[in-house]
Amino acid sequence: MHFASDNSGPVHPKVMAALTAANDGYAMPYGADDLMNALRRQMRELFEAPEAAIYLVATGTAANSLALATLSQPFETVFCSPVAHIHEDECNAPEFYTGGAKLTLVGDSEKMLPGALRAAIEAEESRGVHGPQRGPVSITNVTERGTVYTAAEIGALAAVAKEYGLPVHLDGARFANALVATGASPAEMTWKAGVDALSFGGTKNGLMGVEAVILFDPAKAWEFELRRKRGAHLFSKHRFLSAQMLAYLEDGLWLEMARAANAANARLVRGLRQLPGVSFAHEPQANMSFAGWSRAGHRRLHEAGAQYYLWAGHLEGNDPDEMLTARMVCDWSANDEDIDRFVALVRG
Amino acid sequence: MHFASDNSGPVHPKVMAALTAANDGYAMPYGADDLMNALRRQMRELFEAPEAAIYLVATGTAANSLALATLSQPFETVFCSPVAHIHEDECNAPEFYTGGAKLTLVGDSEKMLPGALRAAIEAEESRGVHGPQRGPVSITNVTERGTVYTAAEIGALAAVAKEYGLPVHLDGARFANALVATGASPAEMTWKAGVDALSFGGTKNGLMGVEAVILFDPAKAWEFELRRKRGAHLFSKHRFLSAQMLAYLEDGLWLEMARAANAANARLVRGLRQLPGVSFAHEPQANMSFAGWSRAGHRRLHEAGAQYYLWAGHLEGNDPDEMLTARMVCDWSANDEDIDRFVALVRG
Amino acid sequence: MHFASDNSGPVHPKVMAALTAANDGYAMPYGADDLMNALRRQMRELFEAPEAAIYLVATGTAANSLALATLSQPFETVFCSPVAHIHEDECNAPEFYTGGAKLTLVGDSEKMLPGALRAAIEAEESRGVHGPQRGPVSITNVTERGTVYTAAEIGALAAVAKEYGLPVHLDGARFANALVATGASPAEMTWKAGVDALSFGGTKNGLMGVEAVILFDPAKAWEFELRRKRGAHLFSKHRFLSAQMLAYLEDGLWLEMARAANAANARLVRGLRQLPGVSFAHEPQANMSFAGWSRAGHRRLHEAGAQYYLWAGHLEGNDPDEMLTARMVCDWSANDEDIDRFVALVRG
Amino acid sequence: MHFASDNSGPVHPKVMAALTAANDGYAMPYGADDLMNALRRQMRELFEAPEAAIYLVATGTAANSLALATLSQPFETVFCSPVAHIHEDECNAPEFYTGGAKLTLVGDSEKMLPGALRAAIEAEESRGVHGPQRGPVSITNVTERGTVYTAAEIGALAAVAKEYGLPVHLDGARFANALVATGASPAEMTWKAGVDALSFGGTKNGLMGVEAVILFDPAKAWEFELRRKRGAHLFSKHRFLSAQMLAYLEDGLWLEMARAANAANARLVRGLRQLPGVSFAHEPQANMSFAGWSRAGHRRLHEAGAQYYLWAGHLEGNDPDEMLTARMVCDWSANDEDIDRFVALVRG
Repeated sequence: MHFASDNSGPVHPKVMAALTAANDGYAMPYGADDLMNALRRQMRELFEAPEAAIYLVATGTAANSLALATLSQPFETVFCSPVAHIHEDECNAPEFYTGGAKLTLVGDSEKMLPGALRAAIEAEESRGVHGPQRGPVSITNVTERGTVYTAAEIGALAAVAKEYGLPVHLDGARFANALVATGASPAEMTWKAGVDALSFGGTKNGLMGVEAVILFDPAKAWEFELRRKRGAHLFSKHRFLSAQMLAYLEDGLWLEMARAANAANARLVRGLRQLPGVSFAHEPQANMSFAGWSRAGHRRLHEAGAQYYLWAGHLEGNDPDEMLTARMVCDWSANDEDIDRFVALVRG
Repeated sequence: MHFASDNSGPVHPKVMAALTAANDGYAMPYGADDLMNALRRQMRELFEAPEAAIYLVATGTAANSLALATLSQPFETVFCSPVAHIHEDECNAPEFYTGGAKLTLVGDSEKMLPGALRAAIEAEESRGVHGPQRGPVSITNVTERGTVYTAAEIGALAAVAKEYGLPVHLDGARFANALVATGASPAEMTWKAGVDALSFGGTKNGLMGVEAVILFDPAKAWEFELRRKRGAHLFSKHRFLSAQMLAYLEDGLWLEMARAANAANARLVRGLRQLPGVSFAHEPQANMSFAGWSRAGHRRLHEAGAQYYLWAGHLEGNDPDEMLTARMVCDWSANDEDIDRFVALVRG
Repeated sequence: MHFASDNSGPVHPKVMAALTAANDGYAMPYGADDLMNALRRQMRELFEAPEAAIYLVATGTAANSLALATLSQPFETVFCSPVAHIHEDECNAPEFYTGGAKLTLVGDSEKMLPGALRAAIEAEESRGVHGPQRGPVSITNVTERGTVYTAAEIGALAAVAKEYGLPVHLDGARFANALVATGASPAEMTWKAGVDALSFGGTKNGLMGVEAVILFDPAKAWEFELRRKRGAHLFSKHRFLSAQMLAYLEDGLWLEMARAANAANARLVRGLRQLPGVSFAHEPQANMSFAGWSRAGHRRLHEAGAQYYLWAGHLEGNDPDEMLTARMVCDWSANDEDIDRFVALVRG
Repeated sequence: MHFASDNSGPVHPKVMAALTAANDGYAMPYGADDLMNALRRQMRELFEAPEAAIYLVATGTAANSLALATLSQPFETVFCSPVAHIHEDECNAPEFYTGGAKLTLVGDSEKMLPGALRAAIEAEESRGVHGPQRGPVSITNVTERGTVYTAAEIGALAAVAKEYGLPVHLDGARFANALVATGASPAEMTWKAGVDALSFGGTKNGLMGVEAVILFDPAKAWEFELRRKRGAHLFSKHRFLSAQMLAYLEDGLWLEMARAANAANARLVRGLRQLPGVSFAHEPQANMSFAGWSRAGHRRLHEAGAQYYLWAGHLEGNDPDEMLTARMVCDWSANDEDIDRFVALVRG
């Protein structure tokens, strides 16, 4: 019953096999390996983007920070949701990599709305040289609350950004989960909707530690490469990043794993919804859900070894009926037995 | 015949096996995994340093830059050799991570000498607030030219640094090769000699991509952790870093691999030394050598598919007798047949 | 009728005279001038702070950014009002000088309240290494909306900061105006209330371009000096900064000018309050006021050459009765005739 | 007998008068003042550069750092002399403002030579993404050793830079002294020779604290403005910078002051050259000289209150005949009596 995070699950066996297969003799370092050449071709085809520049790094924070640094200037501000990973969970990495750009928080929900984005952009209007300049818009899909933007919603936000000439970054740490949730194609969810740079997540979806950055306009590709090296994110034994990502794409493994994770979450949600007194804080649309039930229920789970984050409230407390909110995340390896057992424990 | 770099060789099978073994179900992320706890204990024992703070990152540049950032202030200068990796091969990563500290180049050889170090430190003396302030001394062992400092030589440099109250960093991307070359113990080569922070390399010596940073004084451990996260170098699936490094240390695999690499280089050097007209630019003391022979010899090697860097000169050129210098690096997997064939091709 | 800003008014004649007097032969550069020695003594006496470290720079943004950089680490966040000058009007200078720290906006008004501050600090609680760490609290007095904190209010905010071990910075670009508005002494408004570093403004109150930074705890004085030099804010002909600030303090000129500015603003407010349909957006407590009246009134003022910022609304528009908000700032040189004429023009 | 630095001398009375004249009522802040408009016209005419972007800051370090930050990227290296002010005397300000660019020291003398510059640029050739990228070439004229580049020499260096597509910065903290020493026009010494950005000094030559930055290609003008504001170098009461610089240019006051300073230095050099045993370390070509004479001579000067820097050696020491080197700088206000008295004291 492990629902703490999709980053604590195992690597898919096919990915492990690909790593072993890649470990054969010598290979050119630093991204000049044959596997990377193959990956570049596949990625471009997958995204219907024959010109796209494609790079691999090992952490999502690196992908986001390097992408934003490449899209922005240090005297600008990045527009994002108040719960964006880049704002809340990266210990100022975006500020570091951009050389001190600011993050402007848009609206008050996990999903940005076009009106709120426009208002935030407009609010940075009138100070000339005194205020920060308008910079990239960064959207997270799947959001940090488990909801999902459709490609059309991404497009509506990007349209606002484009009106002001601002580039658009998509933090797709759970990009696969968003795609299978919406049915959009990779191209529809990105450049066709107006996205300029994508953090294409792998680590939360069955890889060991690889994320791609895709620059749909390759004009700043060389700058990105320099920033990646300067950030110490260029791997010498790069073939082991390439191998993971190639295995990820092969035969649609990435979508298969995302489907499994989303389905596991759906099963969990269905089970919990049938219980009286369980309520959801956000509409669970991918592989993450936030639900509240009584302290007594949480205690039963805790004692049975279930793992998840208590998002609001504490296990300690006198009132067994007080509602505490849990965050649960399913990865590709979640199994039905665990889920059903979890739901049964909540039921009591 | 692959002598381009020890970072282009394969991962040791025992390390691959450890990765597979680590891929079992869920594990706590971000360094809270059980394997990391075990590694911490082993490392502290190995270094006879029960208080040391130990962290893992995936690239040598990350290890160096984060260590230096933790040891320095942005208005300081780092003292290093003019051919130090931190100066020549990290695309300004140390400047980036330190927030704009300077690098002061000491002397004109790959090995710093105590006199030259003292002179460089003294030269930063008299400008008060105007000049950069004196910061850490960074030593590379094995050096970038394949020579090795003894523990006593490290101690002599550190003694100069300590006179001025400066911390000492050791870039040990090839630390294992230096140890087996000198017979020093890990403690003798580091904190007993006055080293405050060590970049403990693994990637060039049979790992997939892991380096440890060891802070012998843990006072700045938390700062290091924050800098690592801010630099986007904290891995969620950290167990796969831990597993590699544990396998590395188990039964002395790390020293065994370094011995193999050094021995392979020694065989190569012996073979080349017997050839008339071959001269060495630096005394090869570990797993790297720089030697010169005729363009004709290089052409034969090139046509036979041998891989190494031409350090001085170009294959193109009219004079077949002109001397061109090669850099050759052996990793743990180098084999005698390749070496002997290489030597035979130089002989012609 | 110049009410655009207190930074567009003239320098007080006594300050000009002091500059001329200082221009006599040679003087030691970089703050080693005799005038600076005298100023240090006077400032320490004025603030009842014999240990305080005192530095001069030429802009308020420099004072704020250098003070915050000295009090913080790059992986921290600074707590401030959403309308703080450091957030809205310094083009990311605090982010630049701190090396990429974040600014966390507290509450939704120009004055921070202890409860909102506590909530903001608590909200940065639980993410360990992932979120930014808690850093300095920065308070602006006079606020950017013309309201004033009493010394007790500063003390209440600082008490919250101290509970969490956080340092406190006071942006006193209009410090003199706040003092004369509240009757507090310099010490009461600062270190006695828990302030660790003060930006002591002069430029908006009759100087040519000088601000002091006062570090009540001198432990980081040398670090501040290095950051000032590195920021290019150390003046070679420093005596001309010292001379201005000395003249400012002499015979209470600084308080006299602040009293004149506050009194001018009070006269303006009194006049406008008597007019039907004029409303104030914030309680004008120092030398700045925000008031709304009809577009027709604004047009009359504009045609008569009055200068001030339209804070909300535009002169263009069809409805002459629509309410538009003006921001008016009085400096020491504002005169009664202009004020009365201004009020008469609003009246129509 | 004040020869410590041209930054410790007085402001020219005409400049003081201009400041007083500028202090009349209200003026638009932040560079929108009428005086700045007039200055822009005059500067463009003076430099025969009708498109040039012209900005004022208050320190030479700010001018240099902002100009270099605008011309470079953080992953580049700036080529300069090993004794350049940007390297030795700015406490890492260029590294700070550029976001961590490196400085590559060219050759071993205070004047860069085209061959040494080419060699240094070539040396950064072959490392691809690993080494720093080639960035701006920064030339100092007058050099930090009192020697002067002719316009042709500047042109020869710039020609090398242009071959590699690198921009050229001229640190002209003593630009006026270089012009009067060589007879070149402002345009000949700058853009006609290939200079892209000029730090046009005023502070060392009779101003209170003003330097201009001239971008001959205005393409990056807006970026410069944002960097200036972000660096906290935009003055609200900007008219007092404008007024100084306007007075500086009026009727050639700036060249008149430089001529006086150079002439004073020449008189000093002539006097010292006639003394037996006095030798010059560099050819004094502007307003600065380095000369050696006996410790006994230095002691006499010291006791008589003469002020200058001992560049090599210490007053303390047993041997009265030991040669110690002095650095002497003359400003516009140096007088013949002091100089002659100084020479007489050296003679003994």
